[in-house]
Amino acid sequence: MKINDFLCEQWMTEYETEAIYNMTDTSFQALSLQELLSMEEGFPQDLILDYGEITGKKALKQEILKLYQTGNEENIVCFPGALNANQHVMDALLQAGDHVIAFVPGYQQFYDYPLSLGCEVTCLSFHEEQDWKFSMDEVKESIRKNTKMIVLASPSNPTGTMLTKQEWQQLIELCAKNAIYILCDEVYRGLDIEKTISVSDLYEFGISTSSLSKIFSLPGLRLGWVKAAPFIIDQLVIRRDYTMISTGPLLDHLGWIALKNKEKILERNRAILKANQMTLKSWLQENKEFSVVLNEFSPVVFLKYNMDIPSAALCTQVLKEKGIFFVPGTCFGREYHVRLGLGRDPKQFENGLKLFAKWSKEALKKTYFS
Amino acid sequence: MKINDFLCEQWMTEYETEAIYNMTDTSFQALSLQELLSMEEGFPQDLILDYGEITGKKALKQEILKLYQTGNEENIVCFPGALNANQHVMDALLQAGDHVIAFVPGYQQFYDYPLSLGCEVTCLSFHEEQDWKFSMDEVKESIRKNTKMIVLASPSNPTGTMLTKQEWQQLIELCAKNAIYILCDEVYRGLDIEKTISVSDLYEFGISTSSLSKIFSLPGLRLGWVKAAPFIIDQLVIRRDYTMISTGPLLDHLGWIALKNKEKILERNRAILKANQMTLKSWLQENKEFSVVLNEFSPVVFLKYNMDIPSAALCTQVLKEKGIFFVPGTCFGREYHVRLGLGRDPKQFENGLKLFAKWSKEALKKTYFS
Repeated sequence: MKINDFLCEQWMTEYETEAIYNMTDTSFQALSLQELLSMEEGFPQDLILDYGEITGKKALKQEILKLYQTGNEENIVCFPGALNANQHVMDALLQAGDHVIAFVPGYQQFYDYPLSLGCEVTCLSFHEEQDWKFSMDEVKESIRKNTKMIVLASPSNPTGTMLTKQEWQQLIELCAKNAIYILCDEVYRGLDIEKTISVSDLYEFGISTSSLSKIFSLPGLRLGWVKAAPFIIDQLVIRRDYTMISTGPLLDHLGWIALKNKEKILERNRAILKANQMTLKSWLQENKEFSVVLNEFSPVVFLKYNMDIPSAALCTQVLKEKGIFFVPGTCFGREYHVRLGLGRDPKQFENGLKLFAKWSKEALKKTYFS
Repeated sequence: MKINDFLCEQWMTEYETEAIYNMTDTSFQALSLQELLSMEEGFPQDLILDYGEITGKKALKQEILKLYQTGNEENIVCFPGALNANQHVMDALLQAGDHVIAFVPGYQQFYDYPLSLGCEVTCLSFHEEQDWKFSMDEVKESIRKNTKMIVLASPSNPTGTMLTKQEWQQLIELCAKNAIYILCDEVYRGLDIEKTISVSDLYEFGISTSSLSKIFSLPGLRLGWVKAAPFIIDQLVIRRDYTMISTGPLLDHLGWIALKNKEKILERNRAILKANQMTLKSWLQENKEFSVVLNEFSPVVFLKYNMDIPSAALCTQVLKEKGIFFVPGTCFGREYHVRLGLGRDPKQFENGLKLFAKWSKEALKKTYFS
């Protein structure tokens, strides 16, 4: 199957190792193995490294379920990451010729993966002037007889868009009459679990994917999952036999430790987010050429700059000169923005932002961008 | 994408937990986490659980390369298991309408996954009367203008078929003129690395996939890889951005420990295989209703029985009555066989075989199979 280059991920792979100030990674500062293991007494030395429980360790599923308001073990199946979970959902539920609705600026997997499966894809806009909301009317007008799935993230990468309960209800109403699936990547959801909504708790055809990679600070475990109705899980399990067998007992066990102790991790990360949001707000007041739509619960924002510099050129130049690392807006289909992550070390974040502002002011005087 | 149920894997998932004598798993007895960690000094407690090296840890790739005669880091990319590696190879290189050649009785992924991608698939036979070899003439006659890939395993699951160097050369000669890819799942290759051949060492369009799950006794790590020419690896890397990002630094590190100390693991497993092969040979002499094609290096064989009992009925009944677990031949498209694995504890293997023979003799007298 033909597929387009994944611009954001290729950019990350190509440049991330050069970063001194990584301002764009959307994971919260990663934990060490020791930090993780210290959360639970006893080292799992007797763990037999066989395939383990095929759809995911039961105790892990029980901890995953605590992130949701509804469901039981039959509603959960594990995958190596949320990206992988999204892939399986689209592989299992979509056929060539189906119509899919996604949103830009957004995560490229959501529109280019279904395109690679032979689907027709409509990309609607997140509107910056409306705090990066999408238009419910535009969704309504875009729904066709063959519309099979809406794919989005909430909070969304890179815009930070998060749907309210009312918006979810409106979207579900549009979808329910035609049994249109809503696949929602919820990797950025849950810092404050009581206040954030999962589509899988609201809608029979709503599919929530998530992982330990973002708000749980454990991208190195590569552990994700799907929560959905059993008739959807069953289809994923059939496909999974062709692609992975299991996530394995080691990752399942470590994931279980993380989720069992999630409040420690989330408390740390809420404090990081709050500190970085405050730093960002002060910085924006001092640097009027930048603006952003802030969402209380989103560790990712899309930073707009009012300078006549293409975003790819800006990003490569500031990385080269100062070691400041961003993913450019062009990787998400929108110029004059860079993706800013709010989950890294607050001191480093503050220093990076200050240096970036200083560099920007100097850079504007130079000629190499004009 | 529609896909058929994966019969062997579904059978394993449904029944494996009921096994007292697991006679059919094709992995060598799995190691514990402690057994693995004890092979190398120092616990990796400082390991930061971030994404790690995107295409796989360099030190791990260096150890993987020692399993091959040619290549460098540019020839390797890591995946969560060989099954997953196979999936990525087929996703990246095949288009709907391409023609694929596979072999039966064989592993269902090799023919039903390309079918799910919209490919035309020809299944040729492994011929039991010719020691489960396939016919080179049949391959030649099956090649069409749109033939894009031949998919097989060597040693093959469940027949144990292993291509000689001469057979590889004949097959490659047939493929080279049309640049037909040969995807070879080599998870059962390497117990005696000097004496077993990788297609990736012989052919520019040859793609070797493998993992730690079978001969390295570590299915629980879910770590596999592809070795192929860089122009193929590049296409896999593009697709990987949509599906997984990385295998993560923890699995890469543990995999590195395993391969750095592979001789310890392989020595143990060669001894297990030899013991079980000897047990099997004696058992076959005493139980003439069974026969098998043995391959010195294959931990999987396809046990033929001369009894008028459908294989699925035989397998469910012997599991229910005696806790003896096999996958039936029907899961591989061939009746009157069961898959026998030679990698588990030798005492257990011997007891299981004896009990199975005893049960068979009694079962033949009963009426529930007739």
